[in-house]
Amino acid sequence: MKPLDVLQQSLHKRVLVEMKGGQSFRGTLDGFDQHLNLVLSGAEEVRSDTVAARPGLTLLRGDSIVYISP
Amino acid sequence: MKPLDVLQQSLHKRVLVEMKGGQSFRGTLDGFDQHLNLVLSGAEEVRSDTVAARPGLTLLRGDSIVYISP
Amino acid sequence: MKPLDVLQQSLHKRVLVEMKGGQSFRGTLDGFDQHLNLVLSGAEEVRSDTVAARPGLTLLRGDSIVYISP
Amino acid sequence: MKPLDVLQQSLHKRVLVEMKGGQSFRGTLDGFDQHLNLVLSGAEEVRSDTVAARPGLTLLRGDSIVYISP
Amino acid sequence: MKPLDVLQQSLHKRVLVEMKGGQSFRGTLDGFDQHLNLVLSGAEEVRSDTVAARPGLTLLRGDSIVYISP
Amino acid sequence: MKPLDVLQQSLHKRVLVEMKGGQSFRGTLDGFDQHLNLVLSGAEEVRSDTVAARPGLTLLRGDSIVYISP
Amino acid sequence: MKPLDVLQQSLHKRVLVEMKGGQSFRGTLDGFDQHLNLVLSGAEEVRSDTVAARPGLTLLRGDSIVYISP
Repeated sequence: MKPLDVLQQSLHKRVLVEMKGGQSFRGTLDGFDQHLNLVLSGAEEVRSDTVAARPGLTLLRGDSIVYISP
Repeated sequence: MKPLDVLQQSLHKRVLVEMKGGQSFRGTLDGFDQHLNLVLSGAEEVRSDTVAARPGLTLLRGDSIVYISP
Repeated sequence: MKPLDVLQQSLHKRVLVEMKGGQSFRGTLDGFDQHLNLVLSGAEEVRSDTVAARPGLTLLRGDSIVYISP
Repeated sequence: MKPLDVLQQSLHKRVLVEMKGGQSFRGTLDGFDQHLNLVLSGAEEVRSDTVAARPGLTLLRGDSIVYISP
Repeated sequence: MKPLDVLQQSLHKRVLVEMKGGQSFRGTLDGFDQHLNLVLSGAEEVRSDTVAARPGLTLLRGDSIVYISP
Repeated sequence: MKPLDVLQQSLHKRVLVEMKGGQSFRGTLDGFDQHLNLVLSGAEEVRSDTVAARPGLTLLRGDSIVYISP
Repeated sequence: MKPLDVLQQSLHKRVLVEMKGGQSFRGTLDGFDQHLNLVLSGAEEVRSDTVAARPGLTLLRGDSIVYISP
């Protein structure tokens, strides 16, 4: 299973994304491209298991991502 | 929905952009390119929910962006 | 033996992956691409030999990886 | 309006440029290329609204730039 | 002698590799590619001349490498 | 005036170069390439307006450069 | 004189190389490639003008280099 296949299978499902600066986002994966840029809907920024912000629809830049967990 | 489609749909609407150094900008998305370089008009730099500066028209370099929230 | 051959031989086996920010993940390598983006199933985040989190299926971004140990 | 169009329109006008290390420069935009490398004439380095240095003609490397404000 | 020739000549010999985060690895060079991704067998992580870990077979990502000493 | 034109015009003239790590170099620009790699002759490393070292002929790597001031 | 010409002229001569992490190496330049990856023989790691280590033959990764002084 190729990395992009994981994203394809996770479309319209909830994912957890950790960014390089230590930020984490939870939301529904609505899209992605080959750079691992991600579109999350209903996104929440999560810090220590509490919701820090609710940016809603969010475009996460791929090169700031550490991991994506479907 | 591809990441660039989110930007296309957000044209001429207010967006929030968080940069790698922790800076945030709010403004109207007036343009973008495939590197995620963004043009914001009426841009404000936001720190802890207060407006820190009003650079107005602003070109944000894509590789400094963490996320964009329409 | 080329680097990607090591990954090919490690498919469906347990690997340890250390990331640039100091995080480590253990899991079963389910896939990879030429950017060294990795898919781990049953992944655990490991800190000081204790399990810190169990993200399960995880996509690790290649450019955040320091080393991979099959 | 594409990002490079903003630069085209700002040619021979004063711009403010913030760099990744926190430095800011004000000067007249005399040129640019597709990497966002910029040429400023009459450039001043600005710290906390005071002029810290006057390098005059300056070539700013694009990948060190956070934002450009015409 | 081109940089990749040094690696070719070091195949199946012991090398010392220093990574950007300050980590060092010693092991037998079993392979490499044009990105300087390296395969070490019998690898040991070295800190202050003591062995900190023995990951064994290890794939070191090229862009995290500072230097390689055959 | 394109950024590389500024370098072309500065050939054989004194320039000041600031690097990402905060180092600065003064010297005569003897050459450059499209990556903004620079060759300085008679180069001096400058710290707080005092000369810290005199490496003489120096090749500065372009991606470590913040700005160049002819 | 192009940057790579400086390296060509420095072949088999002693050079000083400063890396991004603050490390410096002195050695005889035995080879290079277009990425500024360098091969030094008889290399010494230098800290505050004292020799900290003698890795001998060393491959220095180009993108970790700040400057090279023949």
